[in-house]
Amino acid sequence: MIIDCHGHYTTEPKDLGRFRQEQIAALKDRSKMPARASLKISDDEIREGLEGAQLKFQRERHTDLVIFSPRAMGMGHHIGDFSVSLEWSQVCNELIHRVCTLYPENFVGVCQLPQTPGVPPDNCIPELERCINEFGMVGCNLNPDPSGGHWTAPPLTDRYWYKFYEKLVELDVPAMVHVSASCNPVFHGTGAHYINADTTAFMQLIMGDLFKDFPTLKLIIPHGGGAVPFHWGRYRGLAMMNKRPPLDEMMRNNVFFDTCVYHLPGIELLTKVVPIDNILFASEMVGAVRGIDPQTGHDFDDTKRYIDQVPWLSAEDKYKIFEGNARKVYNRLKPKVAKPAPARA
Amino acid sequence: MIIDCHGHYTTEPKDLGRFRQEQIAALKDRSKMPARASLKISDDEIREGLEGAQLKFQRERHTDLVIFSPRAMGMGHHIGDFSVSLEWSQVCNELIHRVCTLYPENFVGVCQLPQTPGVPPDNCIPELERCINEFGMVGCNLNPDPSGGHWTAPPLTDRYWYKFYEKLVELDVPAMVHVSASCNPVFHGTGAHYINADTTAFMQLIMGDLFKDFPTLKLIIPHGGGAVPFHWGRYRGLAMMNKRPPLDEMMRNNVFFDTCVYHLPGIELLTKVVPIDNILFASEMVGAVRGIDPQTGHDFDDTKRYIDQVPWLSAEDKYKIFEGNARKVYNRLKPKVAKPAPARA
Repeated sequence: MIIDCHGHYTTEPKDLGRFRQEQIAALKDRSKMPARASLKISDDEIREGLEGAQLKFQRERHTDLVIFSPRAMGMGHHIGDFSVSLEWSQVCNELIHRVCTLYPENFVGVCQLPQTPGVPPDNCIPELERCINEFGMVGCNLNPDPSGGHWTAPPLTDRYWYKFYEKLVELDVPAMVHVSASCNPVFHGTGAHYINADTTAFMQLIMGDLFKDFPTLKLIIPHGGGAVPFHWGRYRGLAMMNKRPPLDEMMRNNVFFDTCVYHLPGIELLTKVVPIDNILFASEMVGAVRGIDPQTGHDFDDTKRYIDQVPWLSAEDKYKIFEGNARKVYNRLKPKVAKPAPARA
Repeated sequence: MIIDCHGHYTTEPKDLGRFRQEQIAALKDRSKMPARASLKISDDEIREGLEGAQLKFQRERHTDLVIFSPRAMGMGHHIGDFSVSLEWSQVCNELIHRVCTLYPENFVGVCQLPQTPGVPPDNCIPELERCINEFGMVGCNLNPDPSGGHWTAPPLTDRYWYKFYEKLVELDVPAMVHVSASCNPVFHGTGAHYINADTTAFMQLIMGDLFKDFPTLKLIIPHGGGAVPFHWGRYRGLAMMNKRPPLDEMMRNNVFFDTCVYHLPGIELLTKVVPIDNILFASEMVGAVRGIDPQTGHDFDDTKRYIDQVPWLSAEDKYKIFEGNARKVYNRLKPKVAKPAPARA
């Protein structure tokens, strides 16, 4: 079985966009906030968006299950206040739940959190609980910078985040550290802000003692860990200089990188330096980079092809990357995905 | 000849630190600003700092010349105002000039700029001219984020920077895009802020038309280009999606990455994906990561060893990386370094 741990709902029915636009427009006049009941999204529209994109790619690429969350760029935590963020997150999460209900074999949900700049994530707990307990979701996306590129929140190792981590541990779900759109003109979203956030988070984890306090907390750093594998020597050295644990020890049960790296040399580097036990298959499809790489004739985001081509990965390594590690990280996936692991290794 | 294009003066005599501390302390009471004449730094102290570090490593690693600039972490553009930044930059640049005068075979200078948050870099021009014309320096370090991690300046492609670029072009000197310390607790300096700045700058250059306006402007993005080579497919794809020129075309005569990547797999990736004509040898010594890599038994920042080990680099490739490209980028190096290029290729 092949589990893609990082997919966003980027083919949402149009009325969701209409709702969000009206919500943003109403920030000036709250009386004009759109009613949730105004949303008109049929099952057929949901099916249509998915059939021509995510489901098509699943079939073509022979992947089985996507761990699926709302469009990351659309979370927009910097827009409005907590009530706006909550309403929008609930709408998005309910839509993910509909997708997962329509296609229980293909999608498992991960939720968006109603984060807001300046507000500790404690008040995201009720929506997290709703999504995990009521909707059967298996994790969440945690934004380390709800300000959207102004970086006003404390590091992820700060006690500011601890109550939320306690809840993650209690529910036994991981968080993917994932920013949303950048409203700072210096940072391109998918080309700078996303990757910078990954790099930033990892360095915070090197310097902090988060996993001493939360030995079972699991964080996924997407986009292959940002710049980290390319600068693996720098990070190993910085850990040494600062008398911190070696990287593989720090990561072991707690930090995982996905494979959203869109060329073979990058995937080769990732699988060469990062422990195989800490790599989760993902493609971010249909997402950040759409289109066919003229050098390969295949979609940039068809990351399975790159992994298939790495000569030194054993069958056991591939099983871990494609399925085994995800089963360890997303503990709540177990009852949901009943199929036993095929004897690939 | 081997030219290391990225070295910082990280072994400065102690009195420089005393001066800076007094300067910072005097921000509250300007009458207590230290006089430049109070600086007591002998030639012997300068020699002592260099002999046991940069010069020792040059001999051991068989490199010849370092393009040398003030400590990047120490620039601290976010501290004080323009007058403070100017005084501090002048002191630091004069010290670099003394180093280059004492060891003209080993060091060529690159200057720090008196940048300040909120002030366009136009008023850095006199200090740039002084360093290039009077001191014979060959370039400058340009900080894309003088705020030190709050990212309040416009993108490097904005007209905000244009007057300064005009002067760079007129003087025919390149700029290395290099941030200083981070005063934002989310960003570790050498482990996040530096690398993020590199990634951020490159993405700005993809999206902007800077080199249409300045066809001869040359920018060096240090630390191997941040996250860019690891995500080369992402950047190729983003350029395509946004109908921007291909990366190698955009970079050709204008954008160069250095080799400050502290492990062999990283250097392999860099030299595999980035055009060889756009890679400049550098080690950042003595700098970001001090210490011996237990996996190799050699210093993390002994980057020459990694390049020597890449099997697919031809003699011509190595000549370009170690010397030829630097001679193209640092045009003012030519009269200074009179030795003809050895017939390696």
